[in-house]
Amino acid sequence: MPMQASSLCFATKVPFRVKSQQTNPTKFKDLSSMAEAAAPKWAQKTITLTPHKRGCHLITSKIVKEIEQDLSGFKCGLAHLFLQHTSASLTINENYDSDVRDDTERFLNIVVPEGPSAPWKHTLEGPDDMPAHIKSSMFGSTLTIPITNGKLNMGTWQGIWLCEHRDYPTSRRVVVTLNGI
Amino acid sequence: MPMQASSLCFATKVPFRVKSQQTNPTKFKDLSSMAEAAAPKWAQKTITLTPHKRGCHLITSKIVKEIEQDLSGFKCGLAHLFLQHTSASLTINENYDSDVRDDTERFLNIVVPEGPSAPWKHTLEGPDDMPAHIKSSMFGSTLTIPITNGKLNMGTWQGIWLCEHRDYPTSRRVVVTLNGI
Amino acid sequence: MPMQASSLCFATKVPFRVKSQQTNPTKFKDLSSMAEAAAPKWAQKTITLTPHKRGCHLITSKIVKEIEQDLSGFKCGLAHLFLQHTSASLTINENYDSDVRDDTERFLNIVVPEGPSAPWKHTLEGPDDMPAHIKSSMFGSTLTIPITNGKLNMGTWQGIWLCEHRDYPTSRRVVVTLNGI
Repeated sequence: MPMQASSLCFATKVPFRVKSQQTNPTKFKDLSSMAEAAAPKWAQKTITLTPHKRGCHLITSKIVKEIEQDLSGFKCGLAHLFLQHTSASLTINENYDSDVRDDTERFLNIVVPEGPSAPWKHTLEGPDDMPAHIKSSMFGSTLTIPITNGKLNMGTWQGIWLCEHRDYPTSRRVVVTLNGI
Repeated sequence: MPMQASSLCFATKVPFRVKSQQTNPTKFKDLSSMAEAAAPKWAQKTITLTPHKRGCHLITSKIVKEIEQDLSGFKCGLAHLFLQHTSASLTINENYDSDVRDDTERFLNIVVPEGPSAPWKHTLEGPDDMPAHIKSSMFGSTLTIPITNGKLNMGTWQGIWLCEHRDYPTSRRVVVTLNGI
Repeated sequence: MPMQASSLCFATKVPFRVKSQQTNPTKFKDLSSMAEAAAPKWAQKTITLTPHKRGCHLITSKIVKEIEQDLSGFKCGLAHLFLQHTSASLTINENYDSDVRDDTERFLNIVVPEGPSAPWKHTLEGPDDMPAHIKSSMFGSTLTIPITNGKLNMGTWQGIWLCEHRDYPTSRRVVVTLNGI
């Protein structure tokens, strides 16, 4: 089955096609001004997140607040988030029970050795630094989320997490790039 | 060395350039109608995967079957897959020996504690739920794969895996976004 | 606050907008030729990395050297890297102290069992093969990095790592896709 039949958007130089509109020439005509709006757009912005204590934090609303005005202009596209740091991470996970975030932080501390008995050579920046680097690669520092009808198209229970892996909280920069039609 | 010399595609408003064609003005002219075809396209679709039992599953053919008709229209681009759940994951790994998938599931169960002795606070949804969330962030819920000449440009031994981390199988939604020329 | 006010780039068919230029009609006019340059571009190339020994390696300069000529033509966009293998991985991490890379390799060997006592069924390709597959899914085989003003917009301390998980070094292919304006 071709994607355009069931998909939310499909565009080259043609306007948005929605099934009912494809069978309605008048509606389809009315939409031709949307062809212009469907030209690919790019937007990019660096967001600075205030310092968060060590652990996992739900930051969906902070991110959305910074980008929602632009986001609303995209019918279909992708939002890319890039954390410019190597001792924190971005991940998508549960958005409701804060216990899930606490348990995830607990897991990270179980799986990555820390302290005097840890086997790390890189200790100059403190005992939490090398574990922080490892956790950053485990969860990753980049996310791509689909945009559909002007919104991030995440599942009902999904949220964006910033995981801070250092003991001393610092502000963190996220480069957000939006691309779509 | 500039990318267009050796690359599979390079386009703004100019047609596809292939090395031999760059030294052949007649061929290059012949290609000018392709400039139109090279206008950026977007397609987006939500795929529902039938329930899979706990473990790692090869889903390349299921995904490709759903998108191949659209995929064939892209000379060059990116396919983005986004799993709308927080207790399963998407990853790229070996596509041949099912033992690799079984061993990966075994690893996940070794590294993430589960059951009465596990230290989790979030237990209301069952003993497999908190481990499932952790595994989801370890492997991730989003993938981006290059498109080249109408196909997913994966390596010979690569495949797309759905890793189901819950005991009780449920259907899972994947938002697929295609973008390219 | 709309993204275009503070963002590095925002484009459909209009030229780049920079705050000062928005209040200066003459400057804005001067920029109108840039509207053409802002048409979306795609470039794609397969890079072959020479064999690296087991461990984590900083490959930023190797990647940049291969793409910088094309990269310089993008004001705003995304660079996508895709490793076509299932026993190595790509990740972003610290770019300065090689101890961080050694410690990360040490961590991977601690967390993923290997050798005669490891519980893997898939052993035909050697004792390092199944652990390599697992590590590949832990760190991932794909990266997306923002492009800003012709450069990869990574943080000061970030670099691109190739993590080779096999004992016997082999060359590795990375498909790089650039997309932007």
